[in-house]
Amino acid sequence: MMLHVGQFNLPSREQFEAAMRGIFERRYYTNQGPLTRAFEERLQSELSVKHAICVTNATIGLMMASEALGIVGRVIVPAVGNATLANALRWCRAETAFADVDMADGQFDVEALDASIAEKGNVKAIIGANSWGDACNAPALVALARAHRLPIMFDSSHGFGCVVAGRPVGSFGDVEVLSFDAADIVNAAGGACVATNDDELAARLRNIRSSYGAGKPVDVVKTSNGRMSEAQAALGLLSLDAYHANRSRNRALFEAYRTGLNSISGVCVVEPRRAELSNHQTLVCAVDEQVASLSRDALIARLAEREVEAVAVRALDAQSRSGAYVDRSWLRLPLGAHVCPSDVERVCALIDEAVKNARMAGSLA
Amino acid sequence: MMLHVGQFNLPSREQFEAAMRGIFERRYYTNQGPLTRAFEERLQSELSVKHAICVTNATIGLMMASEALGIVGRVIVPAVGNATLANALRWCRAETAFADVDMADGQFDVEALDASIAEKGNVKAIIGANSWGDACNAPALVALARAHRLPIMFDSSHGFGCVVAGRPVGSFGDVEVLSFDAADIVNAAGGACVATNDDELAARLRNIRSSYGAGKPVDVVKTSNGRMSEAQAALGLLSLDAYHANRSRNRALFEAYRTGLNSISGVCVVEPRRAELSNHQTLVCAVDEQVASLSRDALIARLAEREVEAVAVRALDAQSRSGAYVDRSWLRLPLGAHVCPSDVERVCALIDEAVKNARMAGSLA
Repeated sequence: MMLHVGQFNLPSREQFEAAMRGIFERRYYTNQGPLTRAFEERLQSELSVKHAICVTNATIGLMMASEALGIVGRVIVPAVGNATLANALRWCRAETAFADVDMADGQFDVEALDASIAEKGNVKAIIGANSWGDACNAPALVALARAHRLPIMFDSSHGFGCVVAGRPVGSFGDVEVLSFDAADIVNAAGGACVATNDDELAARLRNIRSSYGAGKPVDVVKTSNGRMSEAQAALGLLSLDAYHANRSRNRALFEAYRTGLNSISGVCVVEPRRAELSNHQTLVCAVDEQVASLSRDALIARLAEREVEAVAVRALDAQSRSGAYVDRSWLRLPLGAHVCPSDVERVCALIDEAVKNARMAGSLA
Repeated sequence: MMLHVGQFNLPSREQFEAAMRGIFERRYYTNQGPLTRAFEERLQSELSVKHAICVTNATIGLMMASEALGIVGRVIVPAVGNATLANALRWCRAETAFADVDMADGQFDVEALDASIAEKGNVKAIIGANSWGDACNAPALVALARAHRLPIMFDSSHGFGCVVAGRPVGSFGDVEVLSFDAADIVNAAGGACVATNDDELAARLRNIRSSYGAGKPVDVVKTSNGRMSEAQAALGLLSLDAYHANRSRNRALFEAYRTGLNSISGVCVVEPRRAELSNHQTLVCAVDEQVASLSRDALIARLAEREVEAVAVRALDAQSRSGAYVDRSWLRLPLGAHVCPSDVERVCALIDEAVKNARMAGSLA
């Protein structure tokens, strides 16, 4: 059976059935029910933000956030990251422009960003991203945005639980979006939340989310249907309870990968460097084709033959300096609830074997 | 306890738990799982269409349909109908222009539409709507669109189960969207489907729906996250099984309302006129303020005092001829799983009393 990339944390069936029983008794399934409200309160406390507005998925959350901020025109986003962000912005009035990331950790390069704002001109907003279980230099990005008098938003889709500069990822931007997909450490079956400390922005987000108008009615340019269901919230609440145990498990697997992979020449784990605490939900490794005698894509093909899914990290702008590098060398490996320590050993041994075979074939050629 | 507007059909807890048990065993929660595929097949057969593409809600479905059709510029929609349509189009490249409906049944007025196309000029598409448990003249609208060489889409959000010109609502347009919200007769907790007979359009819709690319990869302008969860599909499948029983129940309640309301002067039920078969999921009645001595909004206030929700039908374009009429006189009354025949009797008696009191106050003044 294929070993997949993604977290796939689920509560026990008994826990979930108990939660669903309550939903059935209340006959209240969508539109800001009691479990969604409870999930929002828990998230507000976990993220240290005033408003956590739950939505059906991160794409919708990112669309809502961009429109609530009123972004019309050019917005700078990292050249490497989550394709969901670029896809979401195409439904909005924002026009995406890419800026380089640091090739060592894949996080927004603050200096490159400063240059990019000057170079591209007429920039209306910055959207940073907290990726790969690490965080960008959020305080420096916020300061840069303030200096340029620009709104700043973060795509923190995969950043729940990470801490940077002493504060939770999710609490820095004018608005941030966190994802609770099955692929993420907190799983609310594709749910997400939009976090902000700004009351007016929160009111706009609540009005954009739902035609039924939860909260104070305020003028918004458009509305959507971004409502989270009670079943999603039930899963999310149970998943929050399991967060610390799941994070510890991820961390042990991450460390096993580090030990196994960093001893293979031409292969190394991309480490969370700035986050003081990582959720370790993602394992990214970089393949140096010259040293390993094997391309990233060839390695992915070798692993697929042995039922191990490895996913190429595709740059959003492969023409940029960092994009060209990442587009050629980065891949993600399985790490999550369905992965055991012995799976990690097997994956590392397969990669070791693939590199050794490639070098041998290279020296014979 | 407030008597609400909406269908609120749910399966038994036992049925739903059995379905959820399968989902947990498979550990497969989103992204086109086996229940979603089964729901799509059932819908294709019920709607007599080649492709029924399930999505998370009707707003997303309408957005996806507009983009899959490639609508850029002016699109004609009915001046009275579902606000979800107009809201969805604001995320798209479509610009909404309104045309009148027939004031007797709220369905698109084909003659007014023909005039509207000429008058507004530069029209790129027509979006009809099948509303209030009735249907518009779908065959005539399709013929008109063909004559003008325009694509045609239908918002059939609330039309599941209705039949017009011998065919199911959902099977007429180049693309149609049906909703499975808790308010609808088939309840998949906010789910929806996009129906089409066009293979190329279906491939585009599947690519827009999901970044993970279910089906043949084709070029699309933008992608979204419109995936239906397995829990939604589980509810949807059970709800399809219960459709005929729920429709019969609706019909009996509808007839009780007709008997009760049509004997009150100045009040009458808006009847499905063109649909050969109605899902009877909506009860709309019109209040003639002159005859009843009571405005629609005053009646809504009287009912709210007695814990009966009545919802004003708001025209999307209240400046149009039909919009001005509907915006002043139409309201929806509770009809659904939570409504008993005795509730209908009570609501009719409350309306009768409110009208009698208003007339008495009027004659005393």
